[in-house]
Amino acid sequence: MSLTELRDELRLFAAERDWDQFHTPKNLASALSVEAAELLEPFQWLKTGELSELNEQKHEAIRQELADVLMYLVRLADKLDVDLMTAASEKLVHNRAKYPAEKVRGDSRKYSEY
Amino acid sequence: MSLTELRDELRLFAAERDWDQFHTPKNLASALSVEAAELLEPFQWLKTGELSELNEQKHEAIRQELADVLMYLVRLADKLDVDLMTAASEKLVHNRAKYPAEKVRGDSRKYSEY
Amino acid sequence: MSLTELRDELRLFAAERDWDQFHTPKNLASALSVEAAELLEPFQWLKTGELSELNEQKHEAIRQELADVLMYLVRLADKLDVDLMTAASEKLVHNRAKYPAEKVRGDSRKYSEY
Amino acid sequence: MSLTELRDELRLFAAERDWDQFHTPKNLASALSVEAAELLEPFQWLKTGELSELNEQKHEAIRQELADVLMYLVRLADKLDVDLMTAASEKLVHNRAKYPAEKVRGDSRKYSEY
Repeated sequence: MSLTELRDELRLFAAERDWDQFHTPKNLASALSVEAAELLEPFQWLKTGELSELNEQKHEAIRQELADVLMYLVRLADKLDVDLMTAASEKLVHNRAKYPAEKVRGDSRKYSEY
Repeated sequence: MSLTELRDELRLFAAERDWDQFHTPKNLASALSVEAAELLEPFQWLKTGELSELNEQKHEAIRQELADVLMYLVRLADKLDVDLMTAASEKLVHNRAKYPAEKVRGDSRKYSEY
Repeated sequence: MSLTELRDELRLFAAERDWDQFHTPKNLASALSVEAAELLEPFQWLKTGELSELNEQKHEAIRQELADVLMYLVRLADKLDVDLMTAASEKLVHNRAKYPAEKVRGDSRKYSEY
Repeated sequence: MSLTELRDELRLFAAERDWDQFHTPKNLASALSVEAAELLEPFQWLKTGELSELNEQKHEAIRQELADVLMYLVRLADKLDVDLMTAASEKLVHNRAKYPAEKVRGDSRKYSEY
Protein backbone atom coordinates (compact mmCIF):
# COMPACT_ATOMS: atom_id res chain seq x y z
CA MET A 1 0.00 0.00 0.00
CA SER A 2 1.26 3.49 -0.85
CA LEU A 3 0.68 6.67 1.17
CA THR A 4 -1.92 7.70 -1.42
CA GLU A 5 -3.79 4.46 -0.98
CA LEU A 6 -3.62 4.79 2.82
CA ARG A 7 -4.99 8.34 2.50
CA ASP A 8 -7.93 7.00 0.47
CA GLU A 9 -8.61 4.20 2.95
CA LEU A 10 -8.67 6.72 5.80
CA ARG A 11 -11.01 9.03 3.88
CA LEU A 12 -13.39 6.10 3.41
CA PHE A 13 -13.06 5.05 7.07
CA ALA A 14 -14.06 8.54 8.26
CA ALA A 15 -16.83 8.96 5.70
CA GLU A 16 -18.47 5.64 6.56
CA ARG A 17 -18.65 6.72 10.22
CA ASP A 18 -19.57 10.35 9.62
CA TRP A 19 -16.44 11.28 11.59
CA ASP A 20 -15.24 13.90 9.14
CA GLN A 21 -16.93 16.52 11.33
CA PHE A 22 -14.41 15.77 14.13
CA HIS A 23 -11.40 15.73 11.83
CA THR A 24 -10.60 19.42 11.72
CA PRO A 25 -6.90 20.08 11.15
CA LYS A 26 -6.64 21.46 14.68
CA ASN A 27 -8.16 18.33 16.21
CA LEU A 28 -6.02 16.04 14.06
CA ALA A 29 -2.88 17.96 15.03
CA SER A 30 -3.82 17.48 18.72
CA ALA A 31 -4.47 13.78 18.15
CA LEU A 32 -1.14 13.40 16.34
CA SER A 33 0.67 15.05 19.23
CA VAL A 34 -1.08 12.80 21.74
CA GLU A 35 -0.17 9.69 19.74
CA ALA A 36 3.45 10.83 19.43
CA ALA A 37 3.56 11.13 23.24
CA GLU A 38 2.09 7.64 23.60
CA LEU A 39 4.91 6.47 21.37
CA LEU A 40 7.44 8.25 23.58
CA GLU A 41 6.00 6.84 26.80
CA PRO A 42 7.50 3.31 26.63
CA PHE A 43 10.96 4.83 26.07
CA GLN A 44 10.91 7.43 28.84
CA TRP A 45 12.79 5.47 31.50
CA LEU A 46 14.93 3.30 29.18
CA LYS A 47 18.61 3.88 28.44
CA THR A 48 18.39 3.92 24.63
CA GLY A 49 15.33 1.92 23.63
CA GLU A 50 17.38 -0.22 21.26
CA LEU A 51 15.67 -3.45 20.18
CA SER A 52 17.62 -5.45 22.77
CA GLU A 53 16.05 -3.36 25.55
CA LEU A 54 12.46 -4.05 24.39
CA ASN A 55 10.55 -7.24 25.11
CA GLU A 56 8.14 -8.56 22.50
CA GLN A 57 5.08 -7.07 24.16
CA LYS A 58 6.60 -3.61 24.36
CA HIS A 59 7.82 -3.84 20.76
CA GLU A 60 4.33 -4.71 19.54
CA ALA A 61 2.78 -1.84 21.54
CA ILE A 62 5.30 0.55 20.00
CA ARG A 63 4.57 -0.82 16.53
CA GLN A 64 0.91 0.03 16.97
CA GLU A 65 1.70 3.55 18.16
CA LEU A 66 3.91 4.03 15.09
CA ALA A 67 0.88 3.04 12.98
CA ASP A 68 -1.37 5.50 14.83
CA VAL A 69 1.06 8.35 14.25
CA LEU A 70 1.30 7.53 10.54
CA MET A 71 -2.48 7.40 10.17
CA TYR A 72 -3.10 10.77 11.83
CA LEU A 73 -0.21 12.27 9.89
CA VAL A 74 -1.65 11.09 6.56
CA ARG A 75 -5.13 12.28 7.55
CA LEU A 76 -3.90 15.73 8.61
CA ALA A 77 -1.81 16.16 5.45
CA ASP A 78 -4.87 15.20 3.40
CA LYS A 79 -7.01 17.85 5.08
CA LEU A 80 -4.36 20.47 4.35
CA ASP A 81 -3.76 19.45 0.71
CA VAL A 82 -0.15 18.55 1.45
CA ASP A 83 1.63 15.81 -0.46
CA LEU A 84 3.67 14.28 2.37
CA MET A 85 6.25 12.61 0.21
CA THR A 86 6.95 15.70 -1.88
CA ALA A 87 7.24 17.75 1.31
CA ALA A 88 9.71 15.24 2.79
CA SER A 89 11.78 15.12 -0.40
CA GLU A 90 12.10 18.89 -0.43
CA LYS A 91 12.98 19.02 3.27
CA LEU A 92 15.67 16.43 2.68
CA VAL A 93 17.22 18.56 -0.06
CA HIS A 94 17.06 21.52 2.31
CA ASN A 95 18.68 19.56 5.15
CA ARG A 96 21.49 18.31 2.91
CA ALA A 97 22.36 21.91 2.09
CA LYS A 98 22.02 23.09 5.68
CA TYR A 99 24.18 20.33 7.14
CA PRO A 100 26.93 19.54 4.62
CA ALA A 101 28.36 16.12 5.52
CA GLU A 102 31.99 17.25 5.40
CA LYS A 103 31.31 20.09 7.80
CA VAL A 104 29.16 18.48 10.49
CA ARG A 105 30.58 14.93 10.60
CA GLY A 106 31.29 13.88 14.17
CA ASP A 107 30.43 17.32 15.42
CA SER A 108 28.02 16.74 18.24
CA ARG A 109 27.88 20.44 19.09
CA LYS A 110 26.63 21.20 15.61
CA TYR A 111 24.21 18.35 15.95
CA SER A 112 22.92 19.46 19.26
CA GLU A 113 21.62 22.60 17.59
CA TYR A 114 19.88 20.54 14.92
CA MET B 1 9.41 8.21 -3.69
CA SER B 2 8.11 5.35 -1.52
CA LEU B 3 8.48 5.03 2.25
CA THR B 4 11.18 2.42 1.64
CA GLU B 5 13.12 4.82 -0.55
CA LEU B 6 12.74 7.60 2.00
CA ARG B 7 14.01 5.22 4.69
CA ASP B 8 17.09 4.52 2.57
CA GLU B 9 17.71 8.21 1.92
CA LEU B 10 17.53 8.94 5.66
CA ARG B 11 19.91 6.08 6.43
CA LEU B 12 22.40 7.55 3.98
CA PHE B 13 21.90 11.07 5.35
CA ALA B 14 22.71 9.92 8.89
CA ALA B 15 25.62 7.70 7.82
CA GLU B 16 27.30 10.45 5.80
CA ARG B 17 27.22 12.71 8.90
CA ASP B 18 28.09 10.04 11.47
CA TRP B 19 24.84 10.94 13.22
CA ASP B 20 23.70 7.37 13.73
CA GLN B 21 25.17 7.55 17.23
CA PHE B 22 22.54 10.14 18.22
CA HIS B 23 19.67 8.26 16.60
CA THR B 24 18.76 5.89 19.42
CA PRO B 25 15.08 4.94 19.39
CA LYS B 26 14.59 6.89 22.61
CA ASN B 27 16.11 10.05 21.16
CA LEU B 28 14.16 9.67 17.92
CA ALA B 29 10.91 9.19 19.85
CA SER B 30 11.66 12.42 21.75
CA ALA B 31 12.44 14.24 18.52
CA LEU B 32 9.24 12.95 16.93
CA SER B 33 7.22 14.18 19.89
CA VAL B 34 8.89 17.59 19.73
CA GLU B 35 8.18 17.88 16.00
CA ALA B 36 4.55 16.85 16.52
CA ALA B 37 4.20 19.67 19.05
CA GLU B 38 5.77 22.14 16.60
CA LEU B 39 3.10 21.00 14.16
CA LEU B 40 0.40 21.59 16.76
CA GLU B 41 1.69 25.06 17.69
CA PRO B 42 0.31 27.01 14.70
CA PHE B 43 -3.16 25.54 15.36
CA GLN B 44 -3.34 26.17 19.09
CA TRP B 45 -5.33 29.42 19.06
CA LEU B 46 -7.25 28.85 15.82
CA LYS B 47 -10.90 27.82 15.61
CA THR B 48 -10.47 24.77 13.34
CA GLY B 49 -7.30 25.27 11.34
CA GLU B 50 -9.15 24.66 8.06
CA LEU B 51 -7.30 25.83 4.96
CA SER B 52 -9.32 29.06 4.86
CA GLU B 53 -7.96 30.01 8.29
CA LEU B 54 -4.30 29.62 7.24
CA ASN B 55 -2.36 32.17 5.25
CA GLU B 56 0.25 30.99 2.76
CA GLN B 57 3.17 31.47 5.13
CA LYS B 58 1.53 29.46 7.90
CA HIS B 59 0.53 26.72 5.47
CA GLU B 60 4.11 26.41 4.25
CA ALA B 61 5.46 26.27 7.81
CA ILE B 62 2.97 23.52 8.63
CA ARG B 63 3.92 21.65 5.47
CA GLN B 64 7.54 21.57 6.63
CA GLU B 65 6.57 20.34 10.08
CA LEU B 66 4.54 17.54 8.47
CA ALA B 67 7.69 16.57 6.57
CA ASP B 68 9.77 16.60 9.76
CA VAL B 69 7.30 14.33 11.53
CA LEU B 70 7.31 11.89 8.61
CA MET B 71 11.10 11.78 8.51
CA TYR B 72 11.52 11.06 12.22
CA LEU B 73 8.71 8.53 12.06
CA VAL B 74 10.36 6.65 9.18
CA ARG B 75 13.74 6.82 10.92
CA LEU B 76 12.36 5.50 14.22
CA ALA B 77 10.45 2.67 12.53
CA ASP B 78 13.65 1.73 10.69
CA LYS B 79 15.61 1.51 13.94
CA LEU B 80 12.93 -0.76 15.42
CA ASP B 81 12.57 -3.03 12.35
CA VAL B 82 8.96 -1.99 11.90
CA ASP B 83 7.37 -1.88 8.44
CA LEU B 84 5.23 1.24 8.84
CA MET B 85 2.82 0.48 6.03
CA THR B 86 2.15 -3.08 7.18
CA ALA B 87 1.61 -1.82 10.73
CA ALA B 88 -0.86 0.82 9.51
CA SER B 89 -2.75 -1.69 7.35
CA GLU B 90 -3.16 -4.01 10.30
CA LYS B 91 -4.27 -1.20 12.60
CA LEU B 92 -6.86 -0.15 10.04
CA VAL B 93 -8.30 -3.67 9.97
CA HIS B 94 -8.34 -3.60 13.77
CA ASN B 95 -10.08 -0.20 13.86
CA ARG B 96 -12.72 -1.30 11.34
CA ALA B 97 -13.65 -4.18 13.64
CA LYS B 98 -13.52 -2.03 16.78
CA TYR B 99 -15.69 0.74 15.36
CA PRO B 100 -18.29 -0.85 13.03
CA ALA B 101 -19.68 1.91 10.81
CA GLU B 102 -23.32 1.01 11.41
CA LYS B 103 -22.85 1.20 15.16
CA VAL B 104 -20.82 4.37 15.65
CA ARG B 105 -22.14 6.58 12.85
CA GLY B 106 -23.02 10.03 14.12
CA ASP B 107 -22.31 8.94 17.66
CA SER B 108 -20.07 11.61 19.04
CA ARG B 109 -20.09 10.00 22.47
CA LYS B 110 -18.65 6.82 21.01
CA TYR B 111 -16.18 8.89 19.12
CA SER B 112 -15.14 10.90 22.09
CA GLU B 113 -13.82 7.71 23.64
CA TYR B 114 -11.84 6.93 20.49
CA MET C 1 1.40 23.01 50.93
CA SER C 2 3.81 25.30 49.08
CA LEU C 3 5.85 24.43 45.99
CA THR C 4 8.91 24.14 48.24
CA GLU C 5 7.15 21.64 50.48
CA LEU C 6 5.93 19.66 47.46
CA ARG C 7 9.50 19.61 46.15
CA ASP C 8 10.69 18.17 49.47
CA GLU C 9 7.92 15.55 49.52
CA LEU C 10 8.88 14.44 46.00
CA ARG C 11 12.57 14.26 46.95
CA LEU C 12 11.65 11.99 49.83
CA PHE C 13 9.32 9.88 47.67
CA ALA C 14 12.11 9.22 45.15
CA ALA C 15 14.77 8.64 47.80
CA GLU C 16 12.69 6.08 49.69
CA ARG C 17 12.27 4.09 46.47
CA ASP C 18 15.81 4.55 45.14
CA TRP C 19 14.24 6.07 42.01
CA ASP C 20 16.57 9.03 41.85
CA GLN C 21 18.67 7.06 39.37
CA PHE C 22 15.81 7.24 36.83
CA HIS C 23 15.10 10.91 37.42
CA THR C 24 17.62 12.45 35.09
CA PRO C 25 16.49 15.82 33.76
CA LYS C 26 16.15 14.30 30.29
CA ASN C 27 13.89 11.50 31.55
CA LEU C 28 11.83 13.90 33.64
CA ALA C 29 11.40 16.23 30.66
CA SER C 30 10.14 13.26 28.63
CA ALA C 31 7.78 12.22 31.40
CA LEU C 32 6.47 15.78 31.72
CA SER C 33 5.80 15.91 27.99
CA VAL C 34 4.00 12.56 28.11
CA GLU C 35 1.83 13.72 31.03
CA ALA C 36 1.02 16.99 29.26
CA ALA C 37 -0.20 14.95 26.27
CA GLU C 38 -2.33 12.78 28.56
CA LEU C 39 -3.83 16.00 29.83
CA LEU C 40 -4.53 17.11 26.25
CA GLU C 41 -6.10 13.80 25.25
CA PRO C 42 -9.54 14.25 26.88
CA PHE C 43 -9.90 17.63 25.13
CA GLN C 44 -8.85 16.59 21.63
CA TRP C 45 -12.34 16.07 20.13
CA LEU C 46 -14.22 18.58 22.28
CA LYS C 47 -15.35 22.02 21.12
CA THR C 48 -13.83 24.08 23.95
CA GLY C 49 -13.47 21.81 26.97
CA GLU C 50 -15.32 24.27 29.20
CA LEU C 51 -16.60 22.79 32.47
CA SER C 52 -20.09 22.34 31.01
CA GLU C 53 -18.68 20.00 28.36
CA LEU C 54 -16.98 17.72 30.92
CA ASN C 55 -18.78 15.08 32.94
CA GLU C 56 -17.62 14.37 36.49
CA GLN C 57 -15.53 11.36 35.54
CA LYS C 58 -13.67 13.27 32.84
CA HIS C 59 -13.14 16.23 35.15
CA GLU C 60 -11.61 14.00 37.81
CA ALA C 61 -9.32 12.31 35.27
CA ILE C 62 -8.14 15.72 34.08
CA ARG C 63 -7.60 16.84 37.67
CA GLN C 64 -5.24 13.92 38.21
CA GLU C 65 -3.33 14.68 35.03
CA LEU C 66 -2.94 18.29 36.19
CA ALA C 67 -1.42 16.92 39.39
CA ASP C 68 0.97 14.65 37.46
CA VAL C 69 2.18 17.55 35.34
CA LEU C 70 2.78 19.68 38.43
CA MET C 71 4.72 16.92 40.16
CA TYR C 72 7.06 16.25 37.23
CA LEU C 73 7.48 19.98 36.73
CA VAL C 74 8.50 20.51 40.36
CA ARG C 75 10.83 17.49 40.21
CA LEU C 76 12.52 18.64 37.01
CA ALA C 77 12.96 22.19 38.30
CA ASP C 78 14.50 20.77 41.47
CA LYS C 79 17.04 18.73 39.48
CA LEU C 80 18.02 21.85 37.54
CA ASP C 81 18.26 24.18 40.56
CA VAL C 82 15.47 26.35 39.22
CA ASP C 83 13.12 28.22 41.55
CA LEU C 84 9.86 27.83 39.63
CA MET C 85 8.03 30.70 41.23
CA THR C 86 10.87 33.18 40.69
CA ALA C 87 11.16 32.03 37.08
CA ALA C 88 7.41 32.52 36.55
CA SER C 89 7.43 35.97 38.17
CA GLU C 90 10.23 37.08 35.89
CA LYS C 91 8.54 35.66 32.81
CA LEU C 92 5.37 37.52 33.72
CA VAL C 93 7.27 40.81 33.92
CA HIS C 94 8.81 40.00 30.55
CA ASN C 95 5.40 39.17 29.01
CA ARG C 96 3.84 42.36 30.33
CA ALA C 97 6.54 44.36 28.53
CA LYS C 98 6.31 42.26 25.36
CA TYR C 99 2.53 42.50 25.10
CA PRO C 100 1.44 45.94 26.40
CA ALA C 101 -2.28 45.74 27.17
CA GLU C 102 -3.16 48.92 25.29
CA LYS C 103 -1.48 47.65 22.14
CA VAL C 104 -2.63 44.05 21.89
CA ARG C 105 -6.15 44.25 23.34
CA GLY C 106 -8.64 42.46 21.13
CA ASP C 107 -5.98 41.91 18.52
CA SER C 108 -6.26 38.24 17.68
CA ARG C 109 -3.62 38.52 14.96
CA LYS C 110 -1.12 39.71 17.55
CA TYR C 111 -2.27 36.96 19.83
CA SER C 112 -2.01 34.27 17.23
CA GLU C 113 1.72 34.95 17.11
CA TYR C 114 1.95 34.66 20.88
CA MET D 1 4.44 34.40 45.43
CA SER D 2 2.05 31.48 45.98
CA LEU D 3 0.24 29.50 43.29
CA THR D 4 -2.95 31.38 44.23
CA GLU D 5 -1.24 34.71 43.74
CA LEU D 6 0.20 33.57 40.41
CA ARG D 7 -3.30 32.47 39.36
CA ASP D 8 -4.62 35.95 40.17
CA GLU D 9 -1.80 37.67 38.28
CA LEU D 10 -2.51 35.53 35.21
CA ARG D 11 -6.24 36.29 35.42
CA LEU D 12 -5.44 39.97 35.43
CA PHE D 13 -2.92 39.62 32.59
CA ALA D 14 -5.54 37.94 30.37
CA ALA D 15 -8.34 40.31 31.37
CA GLU D 16 -6.29 43.44 30.63
CA ARG D 17 -5.62 42.11 27.12
CA ASP D 18 -9.09 40.67 26.45
CA TRP D 19 -7.38 37.31 25.85
CA ASP D 20 -9.80 35.32 27.95
CA GLN D 21 -11.67 34.49 24.75
CA PHE D 22 -8.68 32.47 23.53
CA HIS D 23 -8.12 30.71 26.84
CA THR D 24 -10.54 27.83 26.49
CA PRO D 25 -9.43 24.76 28.43
CA LYS D 26 -8.84 22.95 25.13
CA ASN D 27 -6.59 25.73 23.81
CA LEU D 28 -4.72 25.98 27.10
CA ALA D 29 -4.17 22.22 27.16
CA SER D 30 -2.72 22.44 23.64
CA ALA D 31 -0.50 25.33 24.65
CA LEU D 32 0.70 23.46 27.72
CA SER D 33 1.59 20.44 25.60
CA VAL D 34 3.46 22.64 23.13
CA GLU D 35 5.42 24.31 25.95
CA ALA D 36 6.25 20.92 27.50
CA ALA D 37 7.69 19.84 24.14
CA GLU D 38 9.73 23.05 23.93
CA LEU D 39 11.09 22.12 27.35
CA LEU D 40 11.96 18.63 26.10
CA GLU D 41 13.66 19.91 22.96
CA PRO D 42 17.00 21.02 24.50
CA PHE D 43 17.35 17.58 26.14
CA GLN D 44 16.54 15.40 23.14
CA TRP D 45 20.08 14.64 22.00
CA LEU D 46 21.80 14.86 25.39
CA LYS D 47 22.89 11.88 27.49
CA THR D 48 21.15 12.83 30.75
CA GLY D 49 20.70 16.59 30.73
CA GLU D 50 22.34 16.91 34.16
CA LEU D 51 23.46 20.43 35.06
CA SER D 52 27.04 19.64 34.01
CA GLU D 53 25.85 18.94 30.47
CA LEU D 54 24.10 22.31 30.12
CA ASN D 55 25.83 25.59 29.36
CA GLU D 56 24.50 28.78 30.92
CA GLN D 57 22.55 29.80 27.83
CA LYS D 58 20.79 26.45 27.60
CA HIS D 59 20.05 26.47 31.31
CA GLU D 60 18.44 29.90 31.07
CA ALA D 61 16.34 28.85 28.05
CA ILE D 62 15.14 25.79 29.98
CA ARG D 63 14.36 27.94 33.01
CA GLN D 64 12.06 30.08 30.89
CA GLU D 65 10.31 27.03 29.44
CA LEU D 66 9.74 25.74 32.97
CA ALA D 67 8.08 29.07 33.76
CA ASP D 68 5.89 28.87 30.65
CA VAL D 69 4.71 25.38 31.58
CA LEU D 70 3.87 26.51 35.12
CA MET D 71 1.92 29.50 33.87
CA TYR D 72 -0.22 27.53 31.42
CA LEU D 73 -0.73 24.84 34.05
CA VAL D 74 -1.98 27.36 36.60
CA ARG D 75 -4.20 29.03 34.00
CA LEU D 76 -5.73 25.73 32.86
CA ALA D 77 -6.36 24.56 36.43
CA ASP D 78 -8.03 27.91 37.14
CA LYS D 79 -10.38 27.52 34.17
CA LEU D 80 -11.35 24.05 35.40
CA ASP D 81 -11.83 25.01 39.06
CA VAL D 82 -9.02 22.68 40.14
CA ASP D 83 -6.86 23.46 43.17
CA LEU D 84 -3.50 22.29 41.86
CA MET D 85 -1.84 21.83 45.23
CA THR D 86 -4.72 19.83 46.70
CA ALA D 87 -4.78 17.64 43.58
CA ALA D 88 -1.01 17.04 43.86
CA SER D 89 -1.23 16.22 47.57
CA GLU D 90 -3.92 13.64 46.92
CA LYS D 91 -2.02 12.11 44.02
CA LEU D 92 1.04 11.81 46.22
CA VAL D 93 -0.96 9.90 48.84
CA HIS D 94 -2.27 7.67 46.04
CA ASN D 95 1.23 7.07 44.64
CA ARG D 96 2.63 6.21 48.08
CA ALA D 97 -0.01 3.48 48.41
CA LYS D 98 0.46 2.26 44.84
CA TYR D 99 4.25 2.02 45.07
CA PRO D 100 5.15 0.98 48.64
CA ALA D 101 8.81 1.82 49.18
CA GLU D 102 9.71 -1.58 50.58
CA LYS D 103 8.27 -3.35 47.55
CA VAL D 104 9.55 -1.29 44.63
CA ARG D 105 12.98 -0.21 45.89
CA GLY D 106 15.65 -0.78 43.27
CA ASP D 107 13.17 -2.58 41.07
CA SER D 108 13.62 -1.00 37.69
CA ARG D 109 11.13 -3.39 36.09
CA LYS D 110 8.45 -2.19 38.47
CA TYR D 111 9.53 1.34 37.78
CA SER D 112 9.50 0.91 34.05
CA GLU D 113 5.77 0.28 34.25
CA TYR D 114 5.28 3.45 36.28
